[in-house]
Amino acid sequence: MKITVIGAGHVGATAAHRLAEMQLATEVVLLDIVEGIPQGKALDMFESGPVGLFDTRILGTNDYSDTANSDIVLITAGMARKPGMSREDLLMKNANIVKQVTDQVMTYSDNPIIIMVSNPLDVMTHVSYVRSGLPKERVIGMAGVLDSARFRSFIAEELDVSMQDINAFVLGGHGDSMVPVVKYTNVAGIPLTELLPQERIDALVERTRKGGAEIVNHLKDGSAYYAPAASAVEMIEAIVRDRKRILPCSVQLDGQYGLNKVFIGVPVKLGRNGLEEIIEIDLDQTAREALQQSAAIVETNCNNLSSVLA
Amino acid sequence: MKITVIGAGHVGATAAHRLAEMQLATEVVLLDIVEGIPQGKALDMFESGPVGLFDTRILGTNDYSDTANSDIVLITAGMARKPGMSREDLLMKNANIVKQVTDQVMTYSDNPIIIMVSNPLDVMTHVSYVRSGLPKERVIGMAGVLDSARFRSFIAEELDVSMQDINAFVLGGHGDSMVPVVKYTNVAGIPLTELLPQERIDALVERTRKGGAEIVNHLKDGSAYYAPAASAVEMIEAIVRDRKRILPCSVQLDGQYGLNKVFIGVPVKLGRNGLEEIIEIDLDQTAREALQQSAAIVETNCNNLSSVLA
Amino acid sequence: MKITVIGAGHVGATAAHRLAEMQLATEVVLLDIVEGIPQGKALDMFESGPVGLFDTRILGTNDYSDTANSDIVLITAGMARKPGMSREDLLMKNANIVKQVTDQVMTYSDNPIIIMVSNPLDVMTHVSYVRSGLPKERVIGMAGVLDSARFRSFIAEELDVSMQDINAFVLGGHGDSMVPVVKYTNVAGIPLTELLPQERIDALVERTRKGGAEIVNHLKDGSAYYAPAASAVEMIEAIVRDRKRILPCSVQLDGQYGLNKVFIGVPVKLGRNGLEEIIEIDLDQTAREALQQSAAIVETNCNNLSSVLA
Amino acid sequence: MKITVIGAGHVGATAAHRLAEMQLATEVVLLDIVEGIPQGKALDMFESGPVGLFDTRILGTNDYSDTANSDIVLITAGMARKPGMSREDLLMKNANIVKQVTDQVMTYSDNPIIIMVSNPLDVMTHVSYVRSGLPKERVIGMAGVLDSARFRSFIAEELDVSMQDINAFVLGGHGDSMVPVVKYTNVAGIPLTELLPQERIDALVERTRKGGAEIVNHLKDGSAYYAPAASAVEMIEAIVRDRKRILPCSVQLDGQYGLNKVFIGVPVKLGRNGLEEIIEIDLDQTAREALQQSAAIVETNCNNLSSVLA
Repeated sequence: MKITVIGAGHVGATAAHRLAEMQLATEVVLLDIVEGIPQGKALDMFESGPVGLFDTRILGTNDYSDTANSDIVLITAGMARKPGMSREDLLMKNANIVKQVTDQVMTYSDNPIIIMVSNPLDVMTHVSYVRSGLPKERVIGMAGVLDSARFRSFIAEELDVSMQDINAFVLGGHGDSMVPVVKYTNVAGIPLTELLPQERIDALVERTRKGGAEIVNHLKDGSAYYAPAASAVEMIEAIVRDRKRILPCSVQLDGQYGLNKVFIGVPVKLGRNGLEEIIEIDLDQTAREALQQSAAIVETNCNNLSSVLA
Repeated sequence: MKITVIGAGHVGATAAHRLAEMQLATEVVLLDIVEGIPQGKALDMFESGPVGLFDTRILGTNDYSDTANSDIVLITAGMARKPGMSREDLLMKNANIVKQVTDQVMTYSDNPIIIMVSNPLDVMTHVSYVRSGLPKERVIGMAGVLDSARFRSFIAEELDVSMQDINAFVLGGHGDSMVPVVKYTNVAGIPLTELLPQERIDALVERTRKGGAEIVNHLKDGSAYYAPAASAVEMIEAIVRDRKRILPCSVQLDGQYGLNKVFIGVPVKLGRNGLEEIIEIDLDQTAREALQQSAAIVETNCNNLSSVLA
Repeated sequence: MKITVIGAGHVGATAAHRLAEMQLATEVVLLDIVEGIPQGKALDMFESGPVGLFDTRILGTNDYSDTANSDIVLITAGMARKPGMSREDLLMKNANIVKQVTDQVMTYSDNPIIIMVSNPLDVMTHVSYVRSGLPKERVIGMAGVLDSARFRSFIAEELDVSMQDINAFVLGGHGDSMVPVVKYTNVAGIPLTELLPQERIDALVERTRKGGAEIVNHLKDGSAYYAPAASAVEMIEAIVRDRKRILPCSVQLDGQYGLNKVFIGVPVKLGRNGLEEIIEIDLDQTAREALQQSAAIVETNCNNLSSVLA
Repeated sequence: MKITVIGAGHVGATAAHRLAEMQLATEVVLLDIVEGIPQGKALDMFESGPVGLFDTRILGTNDYSDTANSDIVLITAGMARKPGMSREDLLMKNANIVKQVTDQVMTYSDNPIIIMVSNPLDVMTHVSYVRSGLPKERVIGMAGVLDSARFRSFIAEELDVSMQDINAFVLGGHGDSMVPVVKYTNVAGIPLTELLPQERIDALVERTRKGGAEIVNHLKDGSAYYAPAASAVEMIEAIVRDRKRILPCSVQLDGQYGLNKVFIGVPVKLGRNGLEEIIEIDLDQTAREALQQSAAIVETNCNNLSSVLA
């Protein structure tokens, strides 16, 4: 198993180290366009091997030919929005980055599974899907695992219970347009609605929606990376070990939930073949509409990128 | 942290090795009345340390003074029912064993947390509670974790999904009188009832009830130990690491679920202080009655033991 | 990755559970000729999955066709010596068992790596090598890892230091004919000879030689399995994860150490291709002679088996 | 167990996350003087808990009162040398930082074990020892674990063998003044000198000495943190789990190696009480002199700090 991580920023580097330490691959390649950064971080990680007791080969590089024959490629490349930059500008810039990254990846690997982390997530997953020409089972976006991890951690803190016993169910786009399905959110099986008043649940949902911004507000100059990297690696672990995990991921729908040809977060089964099944559940009217709104935003953004994708 | 395991049969030994390997204690004592068995197994476990990379001290002994000042005591001692032995005979024999074990444990440790695994589970937990004089927060029976693990594994197999994403909710006594709460059983939050027809659910529930017997039928001369030991260790891990896990355990109720002074399986919060909270949920009429029947059996059996406990 | 374990006794079952829990394979098959035992134990292990957080498929079977296309096969089948049975009788019986097992394994798997645990170890590895027709890189015996684990654990106990920091170097046959190379045995690099007087070292070496018997003496009816199973799994882990571990294993020499065409314990490099390198070191006269004597015993026993291997 | 990490830069944050994920404490406090950074990083780590399956409480703070009653304190605070800053200026600045940090730590915790990571390492450990008033068993510097991890990783790469099987022995100060004891450095017990020509060994030693600079040269604006954080956590793990690990650490000598009242790297035993034993070995003339030179530099620097420590 060879896994490549594109982007040696905090998310990419943290994910690469985690992949190495969990020995999910015999070889991890960390690639970035900035010279020195992937090399330095990869070497530092490698030097932790005698203590972490792993032997994963870790290569830092600026050269895509080093990614040849990757089984899985995690894409974390992209810019953060800067002051004065419009949301549309950012979208266009990151679409171009993801397009170029995908083209390069596909030059050297025939049939990788691509896990997307770059934002705006659902749109970038679409871009990589279109450019790669890969089947839709092999291009999957990470958003719901992170959103639900945040929601679960907030519930755990509120109730003073173990995070491991909390199951949170989220759909839809990443962040603001996230669609929590509270009736399926539970603690050891007990519906959250039996354990917390609606107003507290609403507050935790709202906090989850703004989860990324909360971290940015603290850090000022920087954004979250521990939870995003761990979430991406959880998806990769499900694939490498063929675990058949049921995780909320951004995948291209094909009629499910009344949606078609759009990437949006829904519960899926992840195994060795990537996306192995889309789980369709009965949504109430509110959730269904919210999901469709969430999808509409993604579609609009994707349409605006036709020039990039041409 | 010092943890003692009473009984060096398959369940006790497997649990002791797991505790050592997970480094949940700096010292694990494995005690049995049979000479040689705890010494031999403990030495064998100890010799696996350089490979398992743990340094937990493991002592096999026949002498209760070696258990002095244990923080947690796992009791697995007891007989299996033999041909021609009535259920009542077995109850009496094991009650006597658990009584003597508890007396010896309390001679050398002031305030341990006792985790009971001996069968019949709920009754034996009661016996140990009464004899130990410990507060009810510190005498806890393992049954629901095992029953729900079995139920979860059967669901995972049926649906071909990861065991990690399945939450099963069971109450009541161990085995036959187990009370599954199917409406709270789910896969990544999705109710099981949306994923399987009722007849398949019923079949899996029935298989779970008979889970112990299914293993015995295979092994002929022996009973389950991998899942029981792992389940007991999960409870101990929750306590040692103060994780506030919500797990179904046999604890003495104090008015919850309309029951009083009886040990029965309900969801509880486990942390460093042992039982930290009993979670009371709304049961429908059927489940409530089943739980009460389950409890009535335990009470009857406990009453029959008044001579033992005198 | 599919791994088969032949023999569902304590060593085989403990190894199978460990393989599953470490998720070194997506599928583990536990095979035994006794009906019910592999099925019961495999089911019990499977039911521990929700607690152990693994999704490895575990199949218990009596049917070799279930082992088809195994990547690695661990052979633990064989009898223990019984009162009145000569050493030669045992050798013949186990050779026949290992012969039949190997034939069956090769019927269903083209190019597995075979790890031998059955005793007498070096001879049984030879039998399996000859019958399988596999290249010598793919038939490897487990003995030195166990012997050195025992030696390390005894040193750790003697010096009250972590097992992880002790490196013990052993060569030669398993057990009595083990050849410890004390000058290469060290604690965090410090030669053991600087830390312990020769008489204590000699005592620990002697205890290691008799390590198997010490456990049998304790257990009376049974022999060691925790450390043997963990040792076998360490070898398998090195192969699965291509770790290039340097471990003492029984392999067929090809001129190294002045020996030819004989299986004997020497330090080797284990990786994805099985035996990747035999490490040859300068031995002093005493060690070299001990190794040759050890090898001579193996050769004699192998020659006596010509009828079995015909 | 409560562990505090002072300094929320890359080393401190990476260590805090690792401590949480390994569940070595029930509570981890990450403190920094910069507002927002420890809060943001701690929250991000906390949000990874549902995926990493840990329940460690993680608090980010600027307020030392939150560190009250810590069992272990890891100090990573300090500046990197900037262009134009003399080595003496840096020493003075960091000594002042470590002094203030230590004073604050001791205000809220009575008897912590302090693990120092700030540079120049041996001097900063001395500063913290003097200011804290703690017994010398409870103030320990991390340098040798990192230096030997680097050396081991380079040997592993050179020989294509597992890092786990390499034991490297280093003494002396951190970095340039490191004293490798090559005769005690081995691969699975086999002396390195039997496996590599002296010129290659020399090259790897030299690379290890310059290990920190190599990373800085790659990163330009930043220094190593993965291996340093993992190394510090390895020491903490040895203490928390009372493992009696033999690790090279900077401790105050008391006549050993002919040195007195100076902090320098030597092999020690780490257990629940911190420094439990200094291991003294026979050094050849060259190594002994190198160690004394290394110590002399530390002493000189410490003497220059008398004003700070007054």
